[in-house]
This record gives sequence, structure tokens and C-alpha cells, in this order.
Amino acid sequence: MSDKLIVVSSDCHAGLHIADYKPYVESKYHDIMDVAVPVQMEMTQKAEQSFLIKEINDAWRAPIQQQLTGAWSYDERIKMLANDGIAAEVIFPDGITEMNTPPFGAGLGLSPRDAVPELQWAGAMAHNRWLAEFCANDPARHIGVASIPLLWDVQQAVDAVRWCVDNGLKSVMIPTLWGDNDPYHHVKYDPFWEVCQDLGVIIHFHSGPAPQPEYFGKQWPAEDLSDQLPGAMGIYVSEVMWWLYRPLTFMIWGGVFERFPRLKAVMTEGGTVFMLPPWLRLLDHNYFDVQFSAKLGDFRSHLSMSPGEYFQRNIAVGASCVPRRDIELRGVLGVDKMMWGSDYPHPEGTWPNTQQYYLETFAGIPEADGRKILGENAIAWYGLDRNRLQAVADKIGPSSAIFHATGEAA
Amino acid sequence: MSDKLIVVSSDCHAGLHIADYKPYVESKYHDIMDVAVPVQMEMTQKAEQSFLIKEINDAWRAPIQQQLTGAWSYDERIKMLANDGIAAEVIFPDGITEMNTPPFGAGLGLSPRDAVPELQWAGAMAHNRWLAEFCANDPARHIGVASIPLLWDVQQAVDAVRWCVDNGLKSVMIPTLWGDNDPYHHVKYDPFWEVCQDLGVIIHFHSGPAPQPEYFGKQWPAEDLSDQLPGAMGIYVSEVMWWLYRPLTFMIWGGVFERFPRLKAVMTEGGTVFMLPPWLRLLDHNYFDVQFSAKLGDFRSHLSMSPGEYFQRNIAVGASCVPRRDIELRGVLGVDKMMWGSDYPHPEGTWPNTQQYYLETFAGIPEADGRKILGENAIAWYGLDRNRLQAVADKIGPSSAIFHATGEAA
Repeated sequence: MSDKLIVVSSDCHAGLHIADYKPYVESKYHDIMDVAVPVQMEMTQKAEQSFLIKEINDAWRAPIQQQLTGAWSYDERIKMLANDGIAAEVIFPDGITEMNTPPFGAGLGLSPRDAVPELQWAGAMAHNRWLAEFCANDPARHIGVASIPLLWDVQQAVDAVRWCVDNGLKSVMIPTLWGDNDPYHHVKYDPFWEVCQDLGVIIHFHSGPAPQPEYFGKQWPAEDLSDQLPGAMGIYVSEVMWWLYRPLTFMIWGGVFERFPRLKAVMTEGGTVFMLPPWLRLLDHNYFDVQFSAKLGDFRSHLSMSPGEYFQRNIAVGASCVPRRDIELRGVLGVDKMMWGSDYPHPEGTWPNTQQYYLETFAGIPEADGRKILGENAIAWYGLDRNRLQAVADKIGPSSAIFHATGEAA
Repeated sequence: MSDKLIVVSSDCHAGLHIADYKPYVESKYHDIMDVAVPVQMEMTQKAEQSFLIKEINDAWRAPIQQQLTGAWSYDERIKMLANDGIAAEVIFPDGITEMNTPPFGAGLGLSPRDAVPELQWAGAMAHNRWLAEFCANDPARHIGVASIPLLWDVQQAVDAVRWCVDNGLKSVMIPTLWGDNDPYHHVKYDPFWEVCQDLGVIIHFHSGPAPQPEYFGKQWPAEDLSDQLPGAMGIYVSEVMWWLYRPLTFMIWGGVFERFPRLKAVMTEGGTVFMLPPWLRLLDHNYFDVQFSAKLGDFRSHLSMSPGEYFQRNIAVGASCVPRRDIELRGVLGVDKMMWGSDYPHPEGTWPNTQQYYLETFAGIPEADGRKILGENAIAWYGLDRNRLQAVADKIGPSSAIFHATGEAA
């Protein structure tokens, strides 16, 4: 085994500036895009102002303006990966940082809130076209996660998945929130799960979406109501993980992984040791507790396995910037479940201090465990080309010496 | 100390058959009640059929028809309490069991779904009038929880709290779900928190409400969609606790307990060791974690204490029918926090086997801890008349021998 570690970031982001998506948007939507983009840019700025602290973000960005263009520039992207020692990356669309989000509300989370279905599809497919091109530069290293606004039309989603696979994309993201649409235990979505299973397409949910208007005010982000709604951000950070787990609660109980046993799903940037193990214990408790089901009837005979067993078989955890505290508690979730990610280019990520993060976080951690979390789990889950990635890692990867460094190590 | 234990049930239910509320409803609503009650009765039957297993409930009820009338008959109530060894009880409105729920959607949970504000108020106040009469039979033993549909009109809620106190009711229940109305971090509710604090009125949330139409179908309970929405009940039981904790997430972060430091709240029948401690740890993590707040701004400087500290000071847990497993883990939540309850007359409660429950659950538990959970915590929290209750307990209370029994004891 090489002493150069294969690192896979299970959580990176990329996307064009919103206006730059135009060449990828079907021409029939260009006129409406000219109208919609300035509005969306203004909303994005307002959201950024109300949601993030502008001064902190500006200060964080100032010295790294050039490197941030790796969000869309392939040359910069390769430099960033080399500096971070990352051999391969899973690429989600970007959020509000740098305003490089697809048009028509097709950004991270694919929120159904205020979305016009036809336009959200147009924006998502524009992003998917660009993403397919971007990843085609080196498909072994760039695992693009296509955006599929599943809620509006299941057959359209099935067709879009086929398009993705034909264009080299075998990972997809679907909405985390469904608004007033049918949740994911509805059997109407079966053709979508089926095509994903059959074509080996992995479904992703990425943390972030939540009912923000409930926290920040119904007109959010158009107005700042923090004086009337104190603590909104504390509520958001306390609920956001639950909204990420929720689709999987519905899919597990709904029998999706029973009917489609080879379907794979990933929950990304939703924490590892705080709420995930309690959530799993609760699902299993409800599955095994007979007293409950006596009154409430049979809600488990359609499931041949317990929720925790589906989780082990069908679900992986994009653990993002795992703090050392969580690495030390890796046994709680299972060392085979955690896939590290840098979250580039988000300010809460490890970038641009990823090399320092490796040293501080993994010193003293058993090498076999560290290798799994940093890359081997993702290689196995996504079926990546390990030989090719080892060749990349031999040039840019961090050394296995990080596990044996002193200092932060206990 | 007497060897007869003072048992307080922190979770009992009482209410009239829906049609029998008429004498307590303002006469101007009688005509509309004549129209609404049959509709609500039909809906309640449908909900019961789709939500509970009719055969199991029918079989459970058959031998105890007479005793179940203790839901509204005071004589039967006293017999039930004597048989269960309960000296005092906290009384919530009833849910769908036995169809004794107030009219106009004013039952347990005070759901805003499909509610007409004026009518929901009329139904709630009808129940409150009846409840005040019922508890006046022996106020030291019956702590009635009045229903306050807070969402529609804060001043009306303030006036209603004053009416409650004038009529001997010092506990109130407010809606657990707010639908599209303002959540509880909105400062518009401050006059309500203030009057409750000033008059020593304790606010309650009772488990049960959740977005059932999301699980069971939008027309629920009018149609059975279980073939299209498999696993709906599994989802419900996996989410229902979270919906109970949610108002307190909003109140804690919103600074309600900062501005009203003597305000007391109770969360009832929401479990004890599964999700409650992880929820508290998450809130405190978000409070203390500086990395998060750097990007997202200051969301804690309006709070002088951590969420966990507000919980310790301002919130109690109506733990209902605590299983032995949870009693053994009482240190996780804190032995001073758990208040037992029988959940009479619900089939998931300990009644009519409460005496057997005492023996099976508390054998081998340290007496001081058991006394707290079974009654002393509630006596302290609600400020009950301990001498009076000891006199009752001396006649009907279980013996402290339950702690020293062999058998189930480890």
C-alpha cells in the first residue's frame, strides 16, 4: 500500500455565475432568463446578507478571490485539489456563496418554494449540461451530482436520469423538501427509484434546505425581521439536520429500499454523531417495539429488515468536514459509514486549510480507520477507479505520516 | 415519611362526548354546532379507523366500558384514581378515544388545520368551562389543563388565561403546530408569556399533533391511501416527538425564557431517553460552537444561558408511562425531570394495569428516585398541596414496598 493517501472529498461544490448559465439554458427560456436573473441575483444578495455575515464572508474571500474561481474554472479547480491533496471529489451545485447558482431556483436543495416547475427543470438541466462538460475533463476524479427536480413529473425525472447516465453523470440530487407535493413514501416515485437502481445512479440529499420563512419571516429574504423573530438562526442550525434526515425517514418506512434493494442514497453534511445515531435508534425502536404496533396496527410487515439494516445496506454519509471530536467517536456511527469532504468553496469547509486539518484531525487515529474516512469508503461506495486515483494521490496526496504525527495526538 | 407513596399522574385525559358540550358552548354557536358535530363525529370515526386498529381498541374497551366513563363521570374518575393509587392528576383534553373531544377542532393539540378561529375558541372555552367545574370537585387532586388557541389572537389568549385563573385553572395547553401562523419565537406572543409568568400559569405541549396529511394523504382521514402511502404510521411514530419538541426549540432560541425567566413549560408524552437528551445536546452544541457562529453571525448574545440551562430551569417532562428501560436510564435526562403519568383513558397507558406496572417497573429502583418520578417532581413543579395529597395517598397510594419487591428486580 502506498504511503500516499487517496483522499476523496464527498462534498464539493461547483457552478457558474448565474448569468453565465445562459449558453446551457434552452434558447426558448432566454427571454425569461433575462428577466429572472436580476431578480434572483438581488434575492441571493439579500439572502446572503440576512443569512450570512457579510463582513466575515468578505474578509474570508478577500485573499482567495482567484482560488475561489475554481468553482467554475477547471484550471483553478485542479490547483485547488492539488493543494488540498484531493484525488477525487463529489460535486454538488453551489449555494449562495459567490452567487454561482443555477437560474430559476434550481440551486442546492432544489426547493419547491416559489418554484415554477418548467423553469426549475430548465435551470437544473442547464446546470447538468455544464456539469457533464466540467466532469468530462477527468471523469475518474470528478463525480458530478446532477440536479433532478423530482417533485413535478416522475416520468420527466426518469428521462432526465437516462440523459445523465448517457452524459457521464451517475449521481443525482433530488429535493430535500417537498412542500405541498407528495412525500417520498408515495409509490408514484417508484419508476424513479427503479431507474436509479437499474442504472446504478446514486441519490443524494445535501444539508441546507429547511423552512427558512418559518424562521426568518414569510417574506424572507426580502426583509429583515430579526427584531421580531429573535433566535431564528439558532433555530435553523438546530433543525436543519432533521430536514435532511426526513426524506430518508419517509423512504425507509415507505419500503423504498425493500422494493429497490440495490438503490443507494447519500445524506451529505448532516453531521455524524449528534443526531444521526439517535435518529437511527428511534427508527429501530419503533420497528421492534411491539406495544406500539398493537394499538397502531401493522406498520412493519412490508419491511423485511429493520430501518437500521436498510441504513447499513443502502445509505452512506457524506460527513463533510468532520471535526476531530466526531472522528474519535467514529465507532458510534461505524467507521465504514463516514466519508470526509472539504466542502469547497464554502467558508465553513476545511479549504483552504485542508492540509492543516489533516494533521490536526487525524494525528493518532489508526491508519486503517483514517484511510476509510478520508477516501476508501467513498471509493467503495461510488465504485471509483482506485488504481487511477492512487496514481493521482502518489503525486498530490497527503502522506500516511499524518496518522503518526505528534502534537494534537493524544 | 409515610410508606404510602404520593403518586401524581402528569398525563391524564378527560372530556365530554362531543355533543354533550352543548350546555358549555355559548348559545350563539348552538345552531352551527348542530351542523358541525355530526361532521366532526364522522371524521373522528374515520380517523380512528385509519389511525388506530379498531379490533384492538374494541377488544381493549369491551371489558372496561363502565370504567372508561371516568373520562367524564366524576364518580368513576375517583374510583379509577383509587384503583390506580393516584393521589393527583394533570388533566388534558381527550383525543379521539371514546370520541370525547371538544367541538370545532378544539381537541388535544388544538390543531390549526382546517380550524375556524372563532369556532375553535368557542369549543376550547366550552371545554375549559366544563373542566373548571370538573376540577372544582377537588382542586388539590385535579390539575386541569385549559385549552388556549393562542395562534389567532394574543390578546384574546391573555384574557382567556385570566379567566382560567379566576376559575381555578392554572395550567394551559397551547397549539403544538402553528401551521402558517407565526411560530413561538415571534415577539408578538410576549404578552401571553408575560401573563402566564405573572399569574404562575404553566404552559403545556402534549404529544400527538404532527402533519398527518403528509403521512396519510391530503384528504386524511376522509380516505385510506395506505396502498399509495405505505409506512405512514412508521413515519408518524418516528416524527411525532420532534413535532412536540419543536415549539420549545423556537421558544428557547427566541429568548422567551430569557425575557420571562419564571415562565414554566411542560412537554408531555414525548419520550425521555431516546430523542430528548440528543435534542438538548444539539441545542447546546449550537450555542457553544464558535465555528458555526462565525459564519452565521451572533445568534446567542440575546441569551444569558445555554439552551440546556433554560431546559433545566424552565421546562419539565411529562414522561407518561415510562418503561422500565427508561427508568433505568433516568440519569441521562436527570431524575428530577421525569414526571410519571398513567395516560388514562388511552389504551397505550398503564391503566387499568397500573398497580402491576408499579411492581414490574420500580422493583429494585432506589426509593428516593422512584418517589421523585412517581410524584414528588410533580408536587414541586406544580406546587401541589403535599400534606393533603399524603392524606389521600395514605388511603389509596401504593406502598413503598414496590421498590423492594423481588421478581423483575435485577
